[in-house]
Amino acid sequence: MEFSEHIKTANVEDAVLRQPLHPPSRGTLCVTGHHLLFSDREEGGCGQVLLLLRNIDATDKRISASSGTITIKCKDLRVLQLDIPGMEQCLNIAHSIETLSSLDRVPEMYPFFYRPSDLSLQDPWGLSSPEKHYSQMEELHDRWRLSNVNRGYSVCTTYPPAVIVPKDINDDMLLKVAKFRQGGRFPVLCYYHRKNGMVIMRSSQPLTGANRKRCGEDELLLQVVIDGSDKGYIIDTRSSQQAQQARITGGGFESKSCYGRWKRLHRQMERGKALQESLIKLVEACGDESHNVDRWLSKLENSKWLSHVQTALSTAGLLAECVERDGHSVLVHGSEGTDSTLLISTLAQLIMDPCCRTLEGFLALLEREWVQAGHPFQQRCAHSAYSHARLQQESPLFLLLLDCVWQLWRQFPLALGFSEALLLRLATEAYVSDYGTFLCNSDQERCSLQVKEKTHCLFRALLRPKEREHYSNPLYEHTELAIWPSVHPQSLQLWRGFFLRWTQQARHLEEAQEEIRNMVIEWGRLALS
Amino acid sequence: MEFSEHIKTANVEDAVLRQPLHPPSRGTLCVTGHHLLFSDREEGGCGQVLLLLRNIDATDKRISASSGTITIKCKDLRVLQLDIPGMEQCLNIAHSIETLSSLDRVPEMYPFFYRPSDLSLQDPWGLSSPEKHYSQMEELHDRWRLSNVNRGYSVCTTYPPAVIVPKDINDDMLLKVAKFRQGGRFPVLCYYHRKNGMVIMRSSQPLTGANRKRCGEDELLLQVVIDGSDKGYIIDTRSSQQAQQARITGGGFESKSCYGRWKRLHRQMERGKALQESLIKLVEACGDESHNVDRWLSKLENSKWLSHVQTALSTAGLLAECVERDGHSVLVHGSEGTDSTLLISTLAQLIMDPCCRTLEGFLALLEREWVQAGHPFQQRCAHSAYSHARLQQESPLFLLLLDCVWQLWRQFPLALGFSEALLLRLATEAYVSDYGTFLCNSDQERCSLQVKEKTHCLFRALLRPKEREHYSNPLYEHTELAIWPSVHPQSLQLWRGFFLRWTQQARHLEEAQEEIRNMVIEWGRLALS
Repeated sequence: MEFSEHIKTANVEDAVLRQPLHPPSRGTLCVTGHHLLFSDREEGGCGQVLLLLRNIDATDKRISASSGTITIKCKDLRVLQLDIPGMEQCLNIAHSIETLSSLDRVPEMYPFFYRPSDLSLQDPWGLSSPEKHYSQMEELHDRWRLSNVNRGYSVCTTYPPAVIVPKDINDDMLLKVAKFRQGGRFPVLCYYHRKNGMVIMRSSQPLTGANRKRCGEDELLLQVVIDGSDKGYIIDTRSSQQAQQARITGGGFESKSCYGRWKRLHRQMERGKALQESLIKLVEACGDESHNVDRWLSKLENSKWLSHVQTALSTAGLLAECVERDGHSVLVHGSEGTDSTLLISTLAQLIMDPCCRTLEGFLALLEREWVQAGHPFQQRCAHSAYSHARLQQESPLFLLLLDCVWQLWRQFPLALGFSEALLLRLATEAYVSDYGTFLCNSDQERCSLQVKEKTHCLFRALLRPKEREHYSNPLYEHTELAIWPSVHPQSLQLWRGFFLRWTQQARHLEEAQEEIRNMVIEWGRLALS
Repeated sequence: MEFSEHIKTANVEDAVLRQPLHPPSRGTLCVTGHHLLFSDREEGGCGQVLLLLRNIDATDKRISASSGTITIKCKDLRVLQLDIPGMEQCLNIAHSIETLSSLDRVPEMYPFFYRPSDLSLQDPWGLSSPEKHYSQMEELHDRWRLSNVNRGYSVCTTYPPAVIVPKDINDDMLLKVAKFRQGGRFPVLCYYHRKNGMVIMRSSQPLTGANRKRCGEDELLLQVVIDGSDKGYIIDTRSSQQAQQARITGGGFESKSCYGRWKRLHRQMERGKALQESLIKLVEACGDESHNVDRWLSKLENSKWLSHVQTALSTAGLLAECVERDGHSVLVHGSEGTDSTLLISTLAQLIMDPCCRTLEGFLALLEREWVQAGHPFQQRCAHSAYSHARLQQESPLFLLLLDCVWQLWRQFPLALGFSEALLLRLATEAYVSDYGTFLCNSDQERCSLQVKEKTHCLFRALLRPKEREHYSNPLYEHTELAIWPSVHPQSLQLWRGFFLRWTQQARHLEEAQEEIRNMVIEWGRLALS
């Protein structure tokens, strides 16, 4: 392994670890190719702290002649501090951390080395596939088909090989539609609403450009989707003005004249840099140690994070209303179709579909709508809120999704089959993981790097009996009803469990959750005996 | 009954009731001397709505030739709307509501008429008394005695007849001390900390005035309290400047030169008008129907309510630290000693004393520290957040207490034996009630109006088996440890259960609580069988 060349000092005795809510502890620090390991040498101390180096978002060091202090800011928002004796030792450790935490060759990442005893690389990978998804929805086989037009990722690099499309549109037509949509992301089905037969599709923007180009096959595709119905909706996650401006760079929107029976609704959603900056401001506010309530509320407001939560939930609510209440099919897209598009299609499914609300159903939904549908995790989650690196493609879309799901979970504490602990776990896993699930930016990349052959699947691991117990909601009760979130500002809350998990005494809340869980288990046992 | 002269129209058919989160319902409206009763005439409607007229804080009416609409804003923050056919009928109803809701002769109030079948006026009244409190603390009998100097309320109109004072101070001396303290509120013991023998006392400010008057008996009283210890603390709930200014109007503080072994700590706490205005602003913000998250957070900040919560909790924390961590006795007062003084002595006891954290213990604490200790409920809770009446003596000190207790409850979900439902119930009862507990401003007034003979006791009623079940915390686990609240701005939350209870869909949260409760009961049954 070439990692060793980055490690000049592998072990430090007498290091001191400081972390919030814990007393400082003294012990041995160890650097390996993928981990930082701190072992407390006193009994009753913190025990061992094992940190994936990739979890480190930023470091600060202060060095003096005889020692130094390294502050480690993690992608999961934890902040640790290490006091290291000896200037040279400290510099060596700091150098190792900086270099090893920023290696970005995927095959060198830890999931390719992680081999837990109770998982085998021969185990099946993933929970869902387009094939399985299609076969589960027999009702739509009349009008929809599974197309393998994208085998070998030849049509769209960010789609899986198989996708669900209208039966009346053959693969040749799809090829033409793909050329007319950014990145080849032609409209595909992502949700079928059993109660009324309506669907949600998603795509990227049409490449109409400044000359208002048209594509007959694209128009036909959308036409046949609403055959027999009076109209459909297109929810564009950009403002009307943004959609107009996109024409200058070759993008565009579905004009009324060419897509007569489709009504366009524009809802501007932030993504990219604006969202990343919002996260950075929020995390900075959460770490503010001033005791001033007013300042805290100002900073919270100023971060705009809760506004983004509100926009996402209300746009998803709009989508669900179109489908469930008005009984119309909907196509969703923004520009690329890999970010806010996935955010609202996922939330709308949670709102409407009880199958997505179980632990397994939710994980399968994430797998279909984020992993397989080509959310570029590697780019979006390269850094979190602390990095000083210049923002490139980072954006916390997935974290925003989890926050929105948490708001749903809080408003409907019985309706979702999973626990807050699952959302917290996923929020970390997306940035740094022992598993391969969130590696790479697309199915194609994962395939070429043999991720499914050489790493383990997070979603499978989360369904092992012990994990399943921990990540289930003990109060869950299945309901067929849609769960309509309130998006009043007064109804939305800061996700304290995530944003304040390392600074606040969240442990009492965990205790209460644990108590409820134990009660349910105990109850089950007694009821059986 | 003379109420009838205020009722020209007693019944209205075909009235329409509108309330948030419910569809409008049509039915019969009835006005009696104490109630407004609406009976839905459709099946599956809202059934009956019974409202104590005294609950009404403000009304608005809009009248047209053929009908009118009365908007009713309640002290418990509920807002209802009544559409009434017929201009005259509407005017009559509005007049009755306005007049009957503002009658303020205590013996005409509903608690004097409320006679539920499962309570008898012969039942014992209250849970605690100074005598009982004293007898339960044998450890302090060596140095403290029960004095009846206030029998007949002759020394202090706002104290109960019996109080706990240092053994070395006889009643004659107490008389002199009383003359030296505002309203006769000489220092009395309110809490004895078993772990280290330290105490909390409370009083009003000393009347040193501009001439720096002294009172030897007052100095002696405080002297004997710390005999054998190196010092004590005085927590003054005013800023140092406010305490100085109080001398102009005859008040003052304990100067270093006269009370050498007492260290004064000043912590400014808002009371009176500032607090009432804060509540009004907060409630206005909560009712704001704009969808703008930023505006909501600005308004929340601008109300300053959470700052008041923070100040109260941190001052109580300081008090508890002096007693529990530093091992010193503390005297608390501001000016009158009937408001912020009681607030922080109550909170400090909850923090330190596990006996105060059970359902019964908490109610007894409120009875001792608020009802018997002379918080002027009638003045403070005459109006809540909606009244247009000019503020007089109104101030939501008790509501602020309940909010602080809720923050504790949320931070330590296992440590308090009562439920959020209890806090919500008390928040309403303090303003309007079927019971006599919160009537009047002092024990003396309650005595002269025979409140204990002619009304029922709320605290007793809350301990009936069915109520006890509803108001207990199913997750409660006794702990001897102090529960130190975090007062970081990030740790404090808006008490949504109270402030948004009528506007927000709180019912799902109630469902979850109910589910947990049922599980515990079911569990108990199964465990026994």
